[in-house]
Amino acid sequence: MVIVVLKPGSTEEDVDKVVELAKKFGFDVNLSKGAEKTIVGIIGDSVYERRGAFESLNCVEEVIAVLKPFKLVSREFHPQDTIVDIDGIKIGGKHFEFFAGPCAVESMEQMENEAKFLSSLGVKILRGGAFKPRTSPYSFQGLGIRGLEILKEVANRYGMKVISEMVAAEDFDVFEKYVDIIQVGARNMQNFRLLEKLGKSGKPIFLKRGFMSTVEEWLLAAEYLFHHGNDKIILCERGIRTFEKYTRNTLDISAVPLVKILSHLPIVVDLSHSTGRRDLIPPLAKAVVAVGANGAMVEVHPDPEKALSDGQQSLNFQEFEKTYKTSMKIYKMLGVKA
Amino acid sequence: MVIVVLKPGSTEEDVDKVVELAKKFGFDVNLSKGAEKTIVGIIGDSVYERRGAFESLNCVEEVIAVLKPFKLVSREFHPQDTIVDIDGIKIGGKHFEFFAGPCAVESMEQMENEAKFLSSLGVKILRGGAFKPRTSPYSFQGLGIRGLEILKEVANRYGMKVISEMVAAEDFDVFEKYVDIIQVGARNMQNFRLLEKLGKSGKPIFLKRGFMSTVEEWLLAAEYLFHHGNDKIILCERGIRTFEKYTRNTLDISAVPLVKILSHLPIVVDLSHSTGRRDLIPPLAKAVVAVGANGAMVEVHPDPEKALSDGQQSLNFQEFEKTYKTSMKIYKMLGVKA
Amino acid sequence: MVIVVLKPGSTEEDVDKVVELAKKFGFDVNLSKGAEKTIVGIIGDSVYERRGAFESLNCVEEVIAVLKPFKLVSREFHPQDTIVDIDGIKIGGKHFEFFAGPCAVESMEQMENEAKFLSSLGVKILRGGAFKPRTSPYSFQGLGIRGLEILKEVANRYGMKVISEMVAAEDFDVFEKYVDIIQVGARNMQNFRLLEKLGKSGKPIFLKRGFMSTVEEWLLAAEYLFHHGNDKIILCERGIRTFEKYTRNTLDISAVPLVKILSHLPIVVDLSHSTGRRDLIPPLAKAVVAVGANGAMVEVHPDPEKALSDGQQSLNFQEFEKTYKTSMKIYKMLGVKA
Amino acid sequence: MVIVVLKPGSTEEDVDKVVELAKKFGFDVNLSKGAEKTIVGIIGDSVYERRGAFESLNCVEEVIAVLKPFKLVSREFHPQDTIVDIDGIKIGGKHFEFFAGPCAVESMEQMENEAKFLSSLGVKILRGGAFKPRTSPYSFQGLGIRGLEILKEVANRYGMKVISEMVAAEDFDVFEKYVDIIQVGARNMQNFRLLEKLGKSGKPIFLKRGFMSTVEEWLLAAEYLFHHGNDKIILCERGIRTFEKYTRNTLDISAVPLVKILSHLPIVVDLSHSTGRRDLIPPLAKAVVAVGANGAMVEVHPDPEKALSDGQQSLNFQEFEKTYKTSMKIYKMLGVKA
Repeated sequence: MVIVVLKPGSTEEDVDKVVELAKKFGFDVNLSKGAEKTIVGIIGDSVYERRGAFESLNCVEEVIAVLKPFKLVSREFHPQDTIVDIDGIKIGGKHFEFFAGPCAVESMEQMENEAKFLSSLGVKILRGGAFKPRTSPYSFQGLGIRGLEILKEVANRYGMKVISEMVAAEDFDVFEKYVDIIQVGARNMQNFRLLEKLGKSGKPIFLKRGFMSTVEEWLLAAEYLFHHGNDKIILCERGIRTFEKYTRNTLDISAVPLVKILSHLPIVVDLSHSTGRRDLIPPLAKAVVAVGANGAMVEVHPDPEKALSDGQQSLNFQEFEKTYKTSMKIYKMLGVKA
Repeated sequence: MVIVVLKPGSTEEDVDKVVELAKKFGFDVNLSKGAEKTIVGIIGDSVYERRGAFESLNCVEEVIAVLKPFKLVSREFHPQDTIVDIDGIKIGGKHFEFFAGPCAVESMEQMENEAKFLSSLGVKILRGGAFKPRTSPYSFQGLGIRGLEILKEVANRYGMKVISEMVAAEDFDVFEKYVDIIQVGARNMQNFRLLEKLGKSGKPIFLKRGFMSTVEEWLLAAEYLFHHGNDKIILCERGIRTFEKYTRNTLDISAVPLVKILSHLPIVVDLSHSTGRRDLIPPLAKAVVAVGANGAMVEVHPDPEKALSDGQQSLNFQEFEKTYKTSMKIYKMLGVKA
Repeated sequence: MVIVVLKPGSTEEDVDKVVELAKKFGFDVNLSKGAEKTIVGIIGDSVYERRGAFESLNCVEEVIAVLKPFKLVSREFHPQDTIVDIDGIKIGGKHFEFFAGPCAVESMEQMENEAKFLSSLGVKILRGGAFKPRTSPYSFQGLGIRGLEILKEVANRYGMKVISEMVAAEDFDVFEKYVDIIQVGARNMQNFRLLEKLGKSGKPIFLKRGFMSTVEEWLLAAEYLFHHGNDKIILCERGIRTFEKYTRNTLDISAVPLVKILSHLPIVVDLSHSTGRRDLIPPLAKAVVAVGANGAMVEVHPDPEKALSDGQQSLNFQEFEKTYKTSMKIYKMLGVKA
Repeated sequence: MVIVVLKPGSTEEDVDKVVELAKKFGFDVNLSKGAEKTIVGIIGDSVYERRGAFESLNCVEEVIAVLKPFKLVSREFHPQDTIVDIDGIKIGGKHFEFFAGPCAVESMEQMENEAKFLSSLGVKILRGGAFKPRTSPYSFQGLGIRGLEILKEVANRYGMKVISEMVAAEDFDVFEKYVDIIQVGARNMQNFRLLEKLGKSGKPIFLKRGFMSTVEEWLLAAEYLFHHGNDKIILCERGIRTFEKYTRNTLDISAVPLVKILSHLPIVVDLSHSTGRRDLIPPLAKAVVAVGANGAMVEVHPDPEKALSDGQQSLNFQEFEKTYKTSMKIYKMLGVKA
């Protein structure tokens, strides 16, 4: 349903114009006249997608969407929590998992080091960037396919699963081969061609919220994936852009319980990008478990001071171990419940 | 210290001009020339306040402040946590307290009801608005002095302390009489005349962050209070304005650990205004305790559906009781530690 | 009129609850049921102010305001342009005026210099701050009453009118004596006590938009003034806060034609605060005249490099003369027409 | 050059650590100690790209970039205005052109209509979307290749050039065949794979600013194109996302003169997307010419009320004619001069 608000001073002919247009599309209408305003409620399938036609009428002041524009990903469509199962590792529902590893895959030795340490703690999913989207063309762009090979080889050795970011539809085959969960980065959340390609695949998708995107736009991006056939979707809040300058982004922690109300999909928080500051990760990790997220992504590096990228937002092994253990303690006490 | 960056193509005379100006103010300088840029580091007392003079020089591209502009409220100035003591109730350090009550004081009966219930749970501080800053002149503006009288009378009966918002310096005498903690609202965070007045008083001040203020501006507002003589300051994060539309504000939860790094002052979170949605309060309360805040403010109403204002962001008694108990459980497990 | 949207799965009882509440307030209702949503249109006086009561109902998902919440300042209420007349100087309608002078009054000599130069060009309104709201307590706070005396004395000598910012209701008497147009600064746009005081006076008010305020909130602040009896209101767009970092604020130039559609009040643009950069003032001045504003405020200083505040956003005499003449040329060609 | 600011209380060893790291990369250093802060200026090629290594050091509080991170697109690198020449149509320098046409290509008849009308006025560049990036998967996605064929055929008939948006690198061949200027949309501004592909081509590129991108990030996106070999770049400001709700975006008009200071590239404004409101286009068109832009893009539709998309931000023929003529009048008077 959408509501068409007419401009003040609209005539009977104006109202007729709106009603006629609605009828032409096969919609039902419901007319309501106040002392100051006339509104027309318009009811029918795809009325949201047709709202532009009404907005274009000269007599119309505003068209208000009453129904949320996403469907398949909504809680109303599917009341139970979706649980994405990756060979027995469960994301969603009452489960909580860490996604940890370095910002970028740098070498076999580094990854070996990481996987050994992380798996010994109990972490099951190993992250690492191989194709890096970088704001400047002069920054380190990642090892590419070689990075994915290293990631997979090491993960196999330690019984871990692999997540890595894919930036273009044309790379799908290599990601299908090496990667267990395909990450769509914040800058690509509205790369619809990429979403279509992944929507037609059977791979679990980790969909980061654009740093400039509303929760509604984010759920519509997930709707693209679902609409094209893929329901293995994990959402990831990673901080939004605001006016605050002491942090790179502002973690929108309310998005976690909000998404749980609006949608059945699992939701995870990226602790590193959310603020861009290493010193805020430990307290925020506690908040993220307590608020009811299904997991946390965090950048961990054997020696953050020597990382080729993002060292300032990576934990070292000792820091991560402490954060991991505290998080698990809270999870055991509270469970996952929004 | 500030750093003056000269425009590309600056001459020796330009550099001399900057150095001369610095010398005139009695500052020390440190010159540094790269292949592409010349910068001048300027060192001395009040150099931050004088930066405008350098910005005005035609040869200057940018002036960068290296030192944070707040002093008395900084952790560097005062490494230990400040604890504000209100007749034995301690805000700050390892302590956690709830500030609860209705958005607006509506009647003696309502407040009696509230105080009885809240004090029975263990809540020690009763909130209630009497002078309400409202966006529209047509909205309910509060009971005024009568509201404060009711608040105080009821609080006394149940051994509670009172917090209420003051919107103008001229109201100070009546607030001094009836109120234990004076709240400065988000819209008045940069009402410097009000800050001056309160800075000269001995009353504990609850300073809300402006919804479009940076953490730096917020700490500078606290600096006004401290500078004028009042160090009993409690900071309150209450959500900032962003582009997200499903919530009224976006809770900037990172501000809690960030403020604890930058400042020695206690910090509390307003759970009701942070998002404007009742259904998000219970999960966010858990996050706020876990992240290490010193307290939480929340609107509680015996019958939110009948509240004269802000009912949509108030908990009823049953909801609050559950939130209170879960919060205390987490507090007992984790303590207050950023 | 407001529209109450019920949550999915709402029952007949829920609908009755909404209807009953509406009836209790004396409002009319209009019910509309779609396949997925039920909505109730609610019609009547002050329904906007009562919307909170509906938002608080558990069965309600959202309350949408159809009618704009401001009245007296709206174009619908008063179709003709308001023209504020200051002893024959007209602000509004087809008129365009400059408001020029230094950021802060510094001395008699400086102001004498300014007034002589500006009046010789044809500028009729002299600006200058005497009570300065400053983010840091350590910055120059203005000359106070002495500043206003200087401003008035000099303006009289050159046949100019005076505008200056007032920051607290308690200063009204001195402003009434010395100042022709009282400026409400961006940080005080929602200082409702100040608005009330000025609303009850007969002085022309120059109401700056808060850097964090929507156009709707700004017009509601003007509504406070009008509602309390003062219709001599000049609106001033002065840049809003965004994520962009190369400018201090982002000039929202669309606000000019938008306000002209929504309201009958005159609208002026502050060229200095809009971006905080001197080098952007000349091109933006041209845009502001072309877009149809009723005037432009600009900081002019005999020697910006020696200004006690805001030198980086002040023009010198030569720069201002050029900007003034180009602006007048465009004004002569286009007139003021949104 | 970057400036490394050390944390308060840093030791000699900490300073040594920073200096050592700088030396390891082959950079020069310049040390400066104030009473409160120690800073190290670091000078050398690619120091900006290496700043992360310094940020990761535990003793470092902040790393400040003094030099702007873009190079090839900067005014310093290339002081003269770049003029993009499309078979004799010049974009940049003193030239001003309109880019007009419907949001989406809908049919041969519609485009025939458009091209005939627009070319008769003097418009030389015809726009029309064929591959539409849409927020919802249920919205009209464009005619695809058929749309480009229609666009080209019609443009040829009327001696016009064609601009259309390309959303994925894999579509390049068909765009190379049919399109004269390839548009990169706001959502793809940081689709680096797409930028690389276009950077390696010889086609003129129309690079829209992301709606939540800073001017710096935008110029870095242009740097990608230039770095990969393509210097035929036209920048397009199209409105940014802010908290204001009466307009879909906020036109950042200051970006026009700002870009002209920072860069040698031509800059155009998209009048339709900037605010999303048809009624604001005519006044804003005047501002855009006056401020010194090199052109304006605008959606024009024979019958906006029947447009398949974006009708609410399209002008009809009569409205466009008026806007076009007024714009040309201002251009003739003022020329293009920031």
